[in-house]
Amino acid sequence: MGVLVVGSVALDTVETLEGKVEDSLGGSATYFSVAASFFHQQIHLVGVVGDDFPSEHVDFLSKRGIDLQGLEQITGGKTFRWGGSYVSDLNAAETEFTDLNVFSDFDPRLPDTYQDTPYVFLANINPELQLRVLEQVYHPKLVVCDTMNLWIDISRPALMETLKQVDILILNDGEAKQLTEKKNLIQAGKEILTYGPSRVVIKKGEHGAISLTESEFFAVPAYPLTSVFDPTGAGDSFAGGFMGYLAAQNQSNDEQTIRQAIVYGTVVASFNVEDFSLNRQRTLTRQEIDDRFNRLKGIAHF
Amino acid sequence: MGVLVVGSVALDTVETLEGKVEDSLGGSATYFSVAASFFHQQIHLVGVVGDDFPSEHVDFLSKRGIDLQGLEQITGGKTFRWGGSYVSDLNAAETEFTDLNVFSDFDPRLPDTYQDTPYVFLANINPELQLRVLEQVYHPKLVVCDTMNLWIDISRPALMETLKQVDILILNDGEAKQLTEKKNLIQAGKEILTYGPSRVVIKKGEHGAISLTESEFFAVPAYPLTSVFDPTGAGDSFAGGFMGYLAAQNQSNDEQTIRQAIVYGTVVASFNVEDFSLNRQRTLTRQEIDDRFNRLKGIAHF
Repeated sequence: MGVLVVGSVALDTVETLEGKVEDSLGGSATYFSVAASFFHQQIHLVGVVGDDFPSEHVDFLSKRGIDLQGLEQITGGKTFRWGGSYVSDLNAAETEFTDLNVFSDFDPRLPDTYQDTPYVFLANINPELQLRVLEQVYHPKLVVCDTMNLWIDISRPALMETLKQVDILILNDGEAKQLTEKKNLIQAGKEILTYGPSRVVIKKGEHGAISLTESEFFAVPAYPLTSVFDPTGAGDSFAGGFMGYLAAQNQSNDEQTIRQAIVYGTVVASFNVEDFSLNRQRTLTRQEIDDRFNRLKGIAHF
Repeated sequence: MGVLVVGSVALDTVETLEGKVEDSLGGSATYFSVAASFFHQQIHLVGVVGDDFPSEHVDFLSKRGIDLQGLEQITGGKTFRWGGSYVSDLNAAETEFTDLNVFSDFDPRLPDTYQDTPYVFLANINPELQLRVLEQVYHPKLVVCDTMNLWIDISRPALMETLKQVDILILNDGEAKQLTEKKNLIQAGKEILTYGPSRVVIKKGEHGAISLTESEFFAVPAYPLTSVFDPTGAGDSFAGGFMGYLAAQNQSNDEQTIRQAIVYGTVVASFNVEDFSLNRQRTLTRQEIDDRFNRLKGIAHF
């Protein structure tokens, strides 16, 4: 058992209407791992940082039980840094700067012990790298993938190649429309199912998420929040809650279990946006997660 | 028992990507009544038309069992005509023309037999007129009201006065934000509850609808459609399905019944957009409505 995630580990400078943080812990693999760690004890991370990466962050991730064997630390290198602002629009970050640093030469290499991990999450990285990860895993039970507008724009052939080998694609509504060139989201979802994945999960921010397969359609509302403190990492937290729960159930196909996993992803994402960086997760408990899961059931059922 | 609706009866000229219809049956009271008539047999309509209003439309409404005692026909007058296009945006009509005609002097007068109707729907008309309707009804069990951006802009004091006397406000997300000047929809909903209504139902188009009271929150997804033929009348069909179902259950406060009513409203609206004008409703059956209700349950439950 176990969950493998390959993605970025970063130091983020984020400004929202609530304030600003500099060089706070971020990155897709980080948000994913921490979210998944609330459900499953074997989360294996592959990423790269420089020797400026604060040891307190390594300690935090280790204490959450995340396996960092695959976190390469480059001596003399600087950690990937991203700066963004949500001051003008809470739903879309305005990127202030992107210093790839050691991440620009990232070539994911899986430790031997990672290669038969059954649950594989390809976080939002260049699809060329996602393909290289897939070459290194041995008969995974479930491969889930994320992507973004940049790769759809500049790396579509590699992305389409990746999608052929992926079981579930998780992306947001804008990306789904861009990828398929369809305006109607249901049509976009159906189109994506012809690219390879047997399921697509489309995140719609404050409008929740939908999931499509050939035969099933599921929709869950967002957890109702009267304010969003910092949306950074919400998508990766969603994916982490989703995969962590699925792996803990040792399930990859049962519709009911997958629906519950989508709701758990929704719940962890809703906590993530309540504070900067991963700060909310530092005190979050499984009981709080389960309470919010049950509250969502009370909201959606009739 | 019974449901009273006061609103417009119109002849619409509508253009969509699918084609164009001229002088087809429309108007808020019309869409509402027909939707409600699938659930309840005593729908009382108050509106006004000219003597150019085709008798086939009167026949259609009568055959659906709608009481037209309150439909005034002005000799020598012309029926309200509206023209709109959804060619550039399916979610928002671009108004081509508005010829109010007899509707410009509309002064709703309730026949004596209407005055103790327990379920009252104030369709989207000038809130001054909505107040005049409320003066004429005798201890209604449930008053539900709709409004639009125009009245929020030009008739806010009368609208706020109306809201004090209304149990449920139904409006769309843009209107909720405009009315409350809040960007967050949950905040907007909570704010509206301080204006008078004990419940607000906010329609979000392809993202479904939410309902808030002091203690309850409900969210239902839209019925997934891969294409929308003509969205005209969707909001009034929603309200009609909602009120018709509530009246048939003789319920106005039970959360579970109201949730089901919201889902029935969602379902009728989803059928309405499948063809021009009220054409889909001409062949629609209660069985089809119930099937789609159950399908939505299968979509939303986890």
